[in-house]
Amino acid sequence: MFAVQGARRNSAVITSLETFDVRFPTSRDLDGSDAMNPDPDYSAAYVVVGTDADDGIEGHGFAFTIGRGNDVQVAAIRALEPFVIGLPVDELRDASRMLLHDSQLRWLGPEKGVMHMAIGAVVNALWDLAAKRAGKPLWALLSEMSPEQLVSLVDFRYLTDVLTPGEALEILRRAQGGREERAARLLEHGYPAYTTTPGWLGYSDAKLARLCREAVEAGYGQIKLKVGASLDDDVRRMRIARDVCGPAIRIAVDANQRWDVGEAVRWIRALEPYDPWWVEEPTSPDDVLGHAAIRREVRPVRIATGEHVQNRVVFKQLMQAEAIDVVQIDAARVAGVNENIAILLLAAKFGLPVCPHAGGVGLCELVQHLAMFDFVAVSGALEDRVVEYVDHLHEHFVDPVVIREGRYLAPTAPGFSAEMTPEALTEHQYPSGAAWV
Amino acid sequence: MFAVQGARRNSAVITSLETFDVRFPTSRDLDGSDAMNPDPDYSAAYVVVGTDADDGIEGHGFAFTIGRGNDVQVAAIRALEPFVIGLPVDELRDASRMLLHDSQLRWLGPEKGVMHMAIGAVVNALWDLAAKRAGKPLWALLSEMSPEQLVSLVDFRYLTDVLTPGEALEILRRAQGGREERAARLLEHGYPAYTTTPGWLGYSDAKLARLCREAVEAGYGQIKLKVGASLDDDVRRMRIARDVCGPAIRIAVDANQRWDVGEAVRWIRALEPYDPWWVEEPTSPDDVLGHAAIRREVRPVRIATGEHVQNRVVFKQLMQAEAIDVVQIDAARVAGVNENIAILLLAAKFGLPVCPHAGGVGLCELVQHLAMFDFVAVSGALEDRVVEYVDHLHEHFVDPVVIREGRYLAPTAPGFSAEMTPEALTEHQYPSGAAWV
Repeated sequence: MFAVQGARRNSAVITSLETFDVRFPTSRDLDGSDAMNPDPDYSAAYVVVGTDADDGIEGHGFAFTIGRGNDVQVAAIRALEPFVIGLPVDELRDASRMLLHDSQLRWLGPEKGVMHMAIGAVVNALWDLAAKRAGKPLWALLSEMSPEQLVSLVDFRYLTDVLTPGEALEILRRAQGGREERAARLLEHGYPAYTTTPGWLGYSDAKLARLCREAVEAGYGQIKLKVGASLDDDVRRMRIARDVCGPAIRIAVDANQRWDVGEAVRWIRALEPYDPWWVEEPTSPDDVLGHAAIRREVRPVRIATGEHVQNRVVFKQLMQAEAIDVVQIDAARVAGVNENIAILLLAAKFGLPVCPHAGGVGLCELVQHLAMFDFVAVSGALEDRVVEYVDHLHEHFVDPVVIREGRYLAPTAPGFSAEMTPEALTEHQYPSGAAWV
Repeated sequence: MFAVQGARRNSAVITSLETFDVRFPTSRDLDGSDAMNPDPDYSAAYVVVGTDADDGIEGHGFAFTIGRGNDVQVAAIRALEPFVIGLPVDELRDASRMLLHDSQLRWLGPEKGVMHMAIGAVVNALWDLAAKRAGKPLWALLSEMSPEQLVSLVDFRYLTDVLTPGEALEILRRAQGGREERAARLLEHGYPAYTTTPGWLGYSDAKLARLCREAVEAGYGQIKLKVGASLDDDVRRMRIARDVCGPAIRIAVDANQRWDVGEAVRWIRALEPYDPWWVEEPTSPDDVLGHAAIRREVRPVRIATGEHVQNRVVFKQLMQAEAIDVVQIDAARVAGVNENIAILLLAAKFGLPVCPHAGGVGLCELVQHLAMFDFVAVSGALEDRVVEYVDHLHEHFVDPVVIREGRYLAPTAPGFSAEMTPEALTEHQYPSGAAWV
């Protein structure tokens, strides 16, 4: 349960907030290249919160960026320091709301962009701290909370026309039966993953074919290709991938917001003969009605989005408008664990599968916890659910993800798996670290 | 015309970008208080760009914030310095696109929040520079450009399902006849304003009544009241305002995003007997479908929004979904003049009046130019159009707005009226200026 460390809970307060501008020079090869992001340097605006407890436990969190502007993201996290210092460590409901509803900071969004991601980084760091103090991996900590506790973590502002606290409670109560059995299943079998490793735009056809083959051999039931730069290239790459993988492997494609509505429809129709499992980010993540129009036109091809969806209000509308088939939460885009619980509840209400976005740096580490919590305590389902997996930069984490036979093994170490090694923080500090000098 | 200074155009480049964290301690009284922003300190993340020309002309621009986080906004502007240095001064089409489409910075939005407002500040500073170099007020500079030049300034990405470059050209060509006559009308009679001065939440009933009376006496045909904190108070205040103003004065109300959908409907119905002219920001600015639902329920009460609408993609949807009756552009929220031209074109396509948001610090100074350009060269109409006016902080500007008989006089000084006095920048520098020490 959440309150396991009752003795400590009432005493410890946050006493420090440290930030790090951490960047990895991933643009030096073409890993991570897609139609909108040709040369990303995967980066983290990284935060560590400390307490006055004598246990030495710290909370770690970060916003993910792709290079330039990571310093702005760090400055936004720093701006939250005065709010966090002195905060009781386990008041995770109030902490999230206080950060979101400061009237002056709110003007910088509201609830979107740099300031919102900064709040997400800090809220996630507080959850990492809470889970470590409780001695549990985050997914288990959340999965053991009562429906009432979970509902109290959610900010229902702007959601009540679609999801009330009462409905959320019902969803969570329905999933109470079987929680322990599902947790045991997770610990034994893990959670299904898919891999984006074969599909980056910068790769040759031969490399694409080889990586597709390796993905199937490694046990993945789904892969993903980046598309959107050239239709001819995409048709050829999709045909190669389908030839190599055969009909039974799901092949998703990801346009990374490259198209306008009409262009998306034409492009998707050209790819349809190769049976794309879903088409991800066909257009602007802000364009709810655009996604809905595309989806209507290309049925039965499934539409997915979410990694750039700014907050629960836009997710709500994507579901209301029947604009998406797949909900792709991201652990570090919205305002942390609390807002992601709201999005999981919305998805459960609409009966849509959650297939988290991951990759970058540390996003796999974080989001696996949310997917596993969803399975144990919210949706109760694994059908058509997969977490993205990309094999980048895991070596820099203290508790990196472990993939076996195309599945994420359930983490067992206490915390949110967010902590980078001290060496990673030092060497990749921008611009002074060894990786950059 | 835009190209008047042809000899200079091909030579000058941007050589400097200076930033200032400027804050005004407006929270010390209750001016500017509303249901979501009880104690704003009106602030500007201010930028000055210089060139290698020997004319000493600089471009000034800013993002408006309400205090905390203004330093983050300044950091975001600083992050654009490497993009701006070396830029030819008059390539305003390419400058805006380059800033918006840098793949790494884009991740921090995309096209929303702190980074987007930073781009807006810099783009607006480049326009201030261009208008000063052309020796014209910005509204006149824009109004003299050809339809083709104006269309070339717009980024149509994510708009083409609703507005194509060809349609935009048609709209602008239709408005070509009568441009000179309308410009002359503007110079003679100015542009209608409405005032929010009477309606701040912090004021007593007596002060509200007195300020309503003064607004009517000053020649305003429309005022606005802040609402949303207490329904009983709002009904009483609306009744007082209606009693004082009589039936002929338009009284808009502004909820500043305070309500969920159902609450908005109940609240607006309770205010309806007092004939609100429009209801502004009834809910989250991200909630297109929420605005549409509220509008359907409260017809014929008119719905307005825009000051927090993040970009052209959300404006597009608000119009597509028939969610608003009034389009409230803001000069410093989106990516500057170029994106606001796109929004003006969308409004013209849907036949909706543009009634800009202003107030804060310098927003009146900026946005009057866009409204006047809309009248001369886009919509060609004044019917139901008004620019917000609030009597705050104009004394800090080199070319402050001038209001006569409830109308903005057309600015005649070259530039975008964005420049603060050197004393204002020094005294209100945060935290070292005299106003803060």
